[in-house]
Amino acid sequence: MALIVQKYGGTSVADCERIEHVAGKVAATRAQGHDVVVVVSAMAGETDRLLGLAHRVAPRPNRRELDVLLASGEQVSMALLCIALEKRGLKARSFTGGQVCIRTDTAHTKARIEKIDTERLRRTLAEGMVPVVAGFQGIDEVGDITTLGRGGGDTTAVGVAAAMQADECHIYTDVDGVYTADPRLVPDARRLPRITFEEMLELASQGSKVLQIRAVEFAGKYNVPLRVLSTFKEGEGTLITYEDHAVEAALVSGVAFSRDEAEIALLGVPQVPGIAYRILGPVSDANIEVDMIVQNVARDGKMDFAFTIHRNDHPQVMDILRANLGHIGAQDLQSNERVVKISVVGVGMRSHAGVASTVFRALAEAGIELRMVATSEIKVSVVVDEKQLEAGVRALHKAFGLASPPKEDMSHRGAAG
Amino acid sequence: MALIVQKYGGTSVADCERIEHVAGKVAATRAQGHDVVVVVSAMAGETDRLLGLAHRVAPRPNRRELDVLLASGEQVSMALLCIALEKRGLKARSFTGGQVCIRTDTAHTKARIEKIDTERLRRTLAEGMVPVVAGFQGIDEVGDITTLGRGGGDTTAVGVAAAMQADECHIYTDVDGVYTADPRLVPDARRLPRITFEEMLELASQGSKVLQIRAVEFAGKYNVPLRVLSTFKEGEGTLITYEDHAVEAALVSGVAFSRDEAEIALLGVPQVPGIAYRILGPVSDANIEVDMIVQNVARDGKMDFAFTIHRNDHPQVMDILRANLGHIGAQDLQSNERVVKISVVGVGMRSHAGVASTVFRALAEAGIELRMVATSEIKVSVVVDEKQLEAGVRALHKAFGLASPPKEDMSHRGAAG
Repeated sequence: MALIVQKYGGTSVADCERIEHVAGKVAATRAQGHDVVVVVSAMAGETDRLLGLAHRVAPRPNRRELDVLLASGEQVSMALLCIALEKRGLKARSFTGGQVCIRTDTAHTKARIEKIDTERLRRTLAEGMVPVVAGFQGIDEVGDITTLGRGGGDTTAVGVAAAMQADECHIYTDVDGVYTADPRLVPDARRLPRITFEEMLELASQGSKVLQIRAVEFAGKYNVPLRVLSTFKEGEGTLITYEDHAVEAALVSGVAFSRDEAEIALLGVPQVPGIAYRILGPVSDANIEVDMIVQNVARDGKMDFAFTIHRNDHPQVMDILRANLGHIGAQDLQSNERVVKISVVGVGMRSHAGVASTVFRALAEAGIELRMVATSEIKVSVVVDEKQLEAGVRALHKAFGLASPPKEDMSHRGAAG
Repeated sequence: MALIVQKYGGTSVADCERIEHVAGKVAATRAQGHDVVVVVSAMAGETDRLLGLAHRVAPRPNRRELDVLLASGEQVSMALLCIALEKRGLKARSFTGGQVCIRTDTAHTKARIEKIDTERLRRTLAEGMVPVVAGFQGIDEVGDITTLGRGGGDTTAVGVAAAMQADECHIYTDVDGVYTADPRLVPDARRLPRITFEEMLELASQGSKVLQIRAVEFAGKYNVPLRVLSTFKEGEGTLITYEDHAVEAALVSGVAFSRDEAEIALLGVPQVPGIAYRILGPVSDANIEVDMIVQNVARDGKMDFAFTIHRNDHPQVMDILRANLGHIGAQDLQSNERVVKISVVGVGMRSHAGVASTVFRALAEAGIELRMVATSEIKVSVVVDEKQLEAGVRALHKAFGLASPPKEDMSHRGAAG
């Protein structure tokens, strides 16, 4: 008998029929003899409806009260799920973040979990009941309601799983696992049976929308095995854990991409100490996140400095740089809003050379021009023209043989099953 | 500077515009130098929407979870009201029933308030803020969410006012006070500037829908001066307090009526000990409330026994009595679903004789046949055919001179103002 935390997102509890479907899944897990703690989000659309009301009352609503308002959303879905569970003959009890003491800091609308008191949850399980906990919300030290920000429901589930020392944390979404690439772009993309926290973090930060980065970080920090599953389709999903040293890791696990990139280049910048800060300091002061940064070797004391940002931030960044151009001493400022980023990710890169050159060869053979390149320990990212996104993702997916399961993984599955 | 508890019902906070209007009224009271604690209901229609969701999931939803579900309604309106107050530059803080420890028993969906902890409210006021409290909800001893049942928002307001020893508790509704009769029936009906708790209780139980009976009882028990006011129309409303002995009370304060009556009569019942229980015991066992009961003097050991019930209960009561007719030993069973009850109410009756005979004379002159009569210390009620409701109410309103203010009240107002 295992203890499993199951998290159902907004689309999984979008209406009464889906809530009954979720109750059926919880009942099935209980029937297998497992203890279950459920974490739910607000019904899909509810958070936006409540935000709409708040903004009709005030353009910048008070953030403490915004949290009180938004927290009502999960209160509705958790109660309805318990009503559905009770109808099936299961005993169930819903709990707000406050009722199970999900203690957070006081940063309203983006609070961080500090502590979870498991006493009430353990007692509820011991009484043979299913606790259903509101995701996304908590209380601060004076008992005020806080929310964790969008996607906070996943973080609540991981936090509860960590505090309860659950065997696995299941995140139910509308996809049935993590894929080697987006199946809408690459028809022969394959679901990964397992993947490491690090790979998942890189995939998430590279645009794969399956899980929230914070929840993955949190799971990695507390070593909570995460499983991504579909609410609507049976299957094993994808298990996210620490690297299993008994199994040789795949060279590349997947190809991710991000469409919303803009590339900015400063040409002929004097190579002097502190120049990178002189360029990016004012951008960062404006709370704009810079993603890739590339600086090449200087010639005659001058170099080119390029970086990527979210496409929405492009006009503001250009304004900042134009105002600063004299101070920076650059000869020219160029930008391109029609670029995308493609990344290959895999922990196997650590012990294998040649991944970058396979990337370059595959893209060259597909006639794709590289605009920028950046690498990390387990990732190679390239920036290309947005027209070449699909061809690039497919070329890399094929070059690393991702359509068929890697030999290592096959032997592992053979040995395990 | 006074401390005033203001309670705004569902129609007062039905949409964002009305919530801003309420914020304006709170701000105006603050501007007069008063401390204000606000109690709000859920936005009109929200409770029914949530109940609809629950009943779509299960025909008889778990009551603990129903309370969790319904309590989300006030959470939305209290947060929106605080957002509106903050936009106006006032400091405001919303609190759920749990956050200000409105402790109730565990009777989910109809809990009763046991205790209110005022510490957080006093601290909030001391910091110059407006506390906005969710009406209708509380928590039980284990921290589970409870609700007080429909109309519980008024009870919360009175409870908060009693616990805080507020100077007055203002109940804002869509009527501007308590009238001598329903103005839709009696065009010259007059708003009463003041009325006693007892009169208000009798008027409420006789069908006047202005305030919930439980809230009036509660206010009387803790001697909280209640004022009924309109959210949408300026005015003094009606103040409900204990009898003011300095002022001679009006003979009759108002005429109330109830349309939903049915009359049942058992004829030729043997006059034996325990016969009333033999008739009404099974009715009461079926949880049906009996209103007026009239038993006349026996002749030849036989008497007639009549009572009134809510019209909806008529078929069930008739079934119960028919099944019991042999055991009761009655000669005949008659009933009439087309009757209404009219009552005149006034604490002045205590010290004045002749009210009943004025009622009888006025109705006789209007050609109205009395079917049943019942009197209490401050009330005379009659049952008449439903076709004579309007004529009866008007005749009584006129007979007691209610259209013009009573002399006693005039002199009082003259002396006070």
